[in-house]
Amino acid sequence: MNDSLINLISRINHFVDERDWSQFHSPKNLAMAMIVEAAEVVEHFQWMTEKETLELNPEIKEKVGHELADTFVYLLRLAEVCGIDLIEATQSKIDLNEKKYPADKARGSNAKYTAYD
Amino acid sequence: MNDSLINLISRINHFVDERDWSQFHSPKNLAMAMIVEAAEVVEHFQWMTEKETLELNPEIKEKVGHELADTFVYLLRLAEVCGIDLIEATQSKIDLNEKKYPADKARGSNAKYTAYD
Amino acid sequence: MNDSLINLISRINHFVDERDWSQFHSPKNLAMAMIVEAAEVVEHFQWMTEKETLELNPEIKEKVGHELADTFVYLLRLAEVCGIDLIEATQSKIDLNEKKYPADKARGSNAKYTAYD
Amino acid sequence: MNDSLINLISRINHFVDERDWSQFHSPKNLAMAMIVEAAEVVEHFQWMTEKETLELNPEIKEKVGHELADTFVYLLRLAEVCGIDLIEATQSKIDLNEKKYPADKARGSNAKYTAYD
Repeated sequence: MNDSLINLISRINHFVDERDWSQFHSPKNLAMAMIVEAAEVVEHFQWMTEKETLELNPEIKEKVGHELADTFVYLLRLAEVCGIDLIEATQSKIDLNEKKYPADKARGSNAKYTAYD
Repeated sequence: MNDSLINLISRINHFVDERDWSQFHSPKNLAMAMIVEAAEVVEHFQWMTEKETLELNPEIKEKVGHELADTFVYLLRLAEVCGIDLIEATQSKIDLNEKKYPADKARGSNAKYTAYD
Repeated sequence: MNDSLINLISRINHFVDERDWSQFHSPKNLAMAMIVEAAEVVEHFQWMTEKETLELNPEIKEKVGHELADTFVYLLRLAEVCGIDLIEATQSKIDLNEKKYPADKARGSNAKYTAYD
Repeated sequence: MNDSLINLISRINHFVDERDWSQFHSPKNLAMAMIVEAAEVVEHFQWMTEKETLELNPEIKEKVGHELADTFVYLLRLAEVCGIDLIEATQSKIDLNEKKYPADKARGSNAKYTAYD
């Protein structure tokens, strides 16, 4: 099998098993860990202008990459522990979003979809 | 190309382009959107015991799947807009974690790695 | 005036003015800063059981106190910058909650109020 | 006693007792609830420019006020349950911040204090 995501998930599960950490990995705890990592991404950007966040220097970009990675690891663990196929769930959520935000109505607008009716 | 993640990223980028939404997708805004979705995962679990979160009924499980999907979409957009290869960044972060948390020291412990020294 | 909250707000506003930091204190930025501090509270508790979080040792308790303080400072700044009287808004929100969660129906239940009907 | 914060805390504690909700109010759960409310503040601002968040219309301002109120309620509950005096902890944290960010060095700068040395 040569799928980049499946390979990554295998590696993460192996990492957790080797350390006997699955005992701490309830969905409740993993959701907390995931939002903590997401907040470390937010922290990098909180005092920057939007424009500054579009022009990160290499040092900050690497740090942001590591925070995104940490968020991703907990997201993958959450899906694993809940028995959710993340790719399938995301494809199915985008199916819904295509109906909620039809391209011709949503174009160029940041209004919430409930505002379309 | 038949990689599940690359296919998903293509679909998301196409979805955003069709709606001309990249104008709103600064890393600053996307980080905010990502943590909001992560919080919707947390909300499902906040009054549950850890044990209850390990035994989700099908209805809640589907909802959690959709919140994980939303978090994932913004995570992928953030990586895209920052020019970060998320798989590569995550593999490289796990390399670091393997050094920070050696399996023989970390086994069965939830102590932060700084506590090992 | 001898109101503990009004005294605190004055001190915080003075602290910000002395440093000429109000230029960074848009509601957008302050909301990001507030959630980052809230996540630092969450981080202390993510791998603890609920019971463990009810029995914090003095060292952790002091750290949690500082994170709560940081969250509070940004919450007060947000209210200030938005022109919101936080005490009044909270009293008025509790008025609403008393109607949404009548004591006789809500007693001992963690169900969301929408589940009562 | 005529202190606005002490009055508010009394009302919240009474509200919780009447509903027998303290059984759900472990610090772990309350920290989750608090960050979920903080995220609802963030959600209002995620697609706005900084400037737009400085000019909220009355309808949005009222909604933001309610989200700040919800965040505040859980912050006060957390302090209560952990046995932390929030006013004292915040005064003591500002004492520390005054040393970490001396006014003459910090003026007009959003650099993290570790960058001063």
